[in-house]
Amino acid sequence: MRSFLELVEDCDSFPYSYPNAAAYRDIVSPLYHLKVASYDHTLGYVPKFVAEAFESFSAWNLNHDAQTLTLISGSNENERSAVVAQTCQELRNQDKFTVLRGWRNELYPVYGPGGVLLFNIERAASALLGVVSYGIHMTAYIRSSSGLLLWVPRRALSKQTYGGMLDNTVAGGISTGEEPFETLIREAQEEASLPEALVRQKAKACGTITYFHIRDERAGGETGLLQPEVQYVYDLELEEGVQPSPSDNEVETFHLWDLAKVQHALHDGQFKPNCALVLLDFLIRHGILDAKNEKDYIQIIARIHRRLEFPTI
Amino acid sequence: MRSFLELVEDCDSFPYSYPNAAAYRDIVSPLYHLKVASYDHTLGYVPKFVAEAFESFSAWNLNHDAQTLTLISGSNENERSAVVAQTCQELRNQDKFTVLRGWRNELYPVYGPGGVLLFNIERAASALLGVVSYGIHMTAYIRSSSGLLLWVPRRALSKQTYGGMLDNTVAGGISTGEEPFETLIREAQEEASLPEALVRQKAKACGTITYFHIRDERAGGETGLLQPEVQYVYDLELEEGVQPSPSDNEVETFHLWDLAKVQHALHDGQFKPNCALVLLDFLIRHGILDAKNEKDYIQIIARIHRRLEFPTI
Repeated sequence: MRSFLELVEDCDSFPYSYPNAAAYRDIVSPLYHLKVASYDHTLGYVPKFVAEAFESFSAWNLNHDAQTLTLISGSNENERSAVVAQTCQELRNQDKFTVLRGWRNELYPVYGPGGVLLFNIERAASALLGVVSYGIHMTAYIRSSSGLLLWVPRRALSKQTYGGMLDNTVAGGISTGEEPFETLIREAQEEASLPEALVRQKAKACGTITYFHIRDERAGGETGLLQPEVQYVYDLELEEGVQPSPSDNEVETFHLWDLAKVQHALHDGQFKPNCALVLLDFLIRHGILDAKNEKDYIQIIARIHRRLEFPTI
Repeated sequence: MRSFLELVEDCDSFPYSYPNAAAYRDIVSPLYHLKVASYDHTLGYVPKFVAEAFESFSAWNLNHDAQTLTLISGSNENERSAVVAQTCQELRNQDKFTVLRGWRNELYPVYGPGGVLLFNIERAASALLGVVSYGIHMTAYIRSSSGLLLWVPRRALSKQTYGGMLDNTVAGGISTGEEPFETLIREAQEEASLPEALVRQKAKACGTITYFHIRDERAGGETGLLQPEVQYVYDLELEEGVQPSPSDNEVETFHLWDLAKVQHALHDGQFKPNCALVLLDFLIRHGILDAKNEKDYIQIIARIHRRLEFPTI
């Protein structure tokens, strides 16, 4: 049985400078800083073996002394995006990285200071550069006489990543140019057959969770890639009788579980790691977990709202 | 008009190492680290002029090279608390610090790693040592046909600190040995005349907010003192007709305000700084602020759930 804080540590696995500054330095100091010419901010951390793959491209400058990987070609978003697309496509053609075999033909935005869009990048390549990615997660629930019941889907065994694990009712990545709420509407329809009108009327924004993940074998592809993420969190209270159901092949089935069953599955490690954090946030906001029954209450809340050390939108 | 992020920066005023590492070092490097003998963790930051006042007490060791102020007397909580009480009383007798004129005869706990209680300290002295303090804040509201209405008290003009400013419906510090929920019950009665049975049944725990404040003139007493705080946050939905009313002399009057009026008063800087953060958290959890209408949504959420660099309970 894993404690809820252990679930958080499993997902928010990038270290903090406190309390172990030495361990933090050991992880951080070998990493390369992703930059864009004429901007000072670090946009992501890149492991050395990834940074070196960019060395042969003239659009990029790799500086081993400063440990920077800088995009030096392109003077606006369009030009930068075109150069980044060329590089990623070439790396894919060379089959340089396993993660690029999961090519999605979907663009993710990379923001600079002040929320300026610096460039877009193929979703599958974003983890290579360690840039912040954005998604939406929604928990659908009903109020019954015996307490809250949550709609919990199980991921299809055939899914590339985390196959067979439990998930949030609706979840998905936010592509370039898409508003979080519109991503939610689209994914609610695609993944859970929840009608647009219903979601538009009843889904409630409840904040964000943020964490910094170091990818391991469970995510597929190279390990050690850096993945800082922002998830916009929504609640959807449903009437009894309204039932989400799979409409694509990403979800196998939906269960309607009481809180005891959900918490047991959490402790049992059955949820996809970032979905566990969304549920912990839900349990905290709804007063199910509190200072009395959860010894790591303060730590958990701070960890799932991590301030990322990169610009965000 | 101040943006909501500016309100957060006003309260969570201790810098972060990102994005301005140099500014962070300028603030942090002169500070002394509060320690307790045989524990390695820093329990708080202490400005030099405060640390030097402890130099003459044999129970304390001041090391200017290591920049540590260490409590070296006492081998358990009781003994340490007694020594700390002696020191603080003596500093008070010498009228060494203005903050000690606000002596409360109320003890605050100081925790070490793993949530072990290391010692207690007079509330008025806790800011001198920069240790984490804990409180509760509750927002009482009603659902009306035109949206949520919030019960907003105005602090008495006679209050030592932040007199005349707006506050949360109920708020107070957690003394040693008190559970957060019991503090809430007590303060709800004392400050707002809300009956125990009602609060016990209907108040809902909704998480914590955490921030790291550098005290300025508004708090009274010495400026530059460090104040990392944890506030346990509760919501209380009331029926129309149930009305909080002042029962001690801390609150002047309660207003029932709609969200537009509350948000206007926030932008106008009328709320006590940490109360503004509790309200922002409320507005975020209730879907009033979202990614579409609040440009600093991600930043605000991360900042008001700051991970403190000291042990907490």
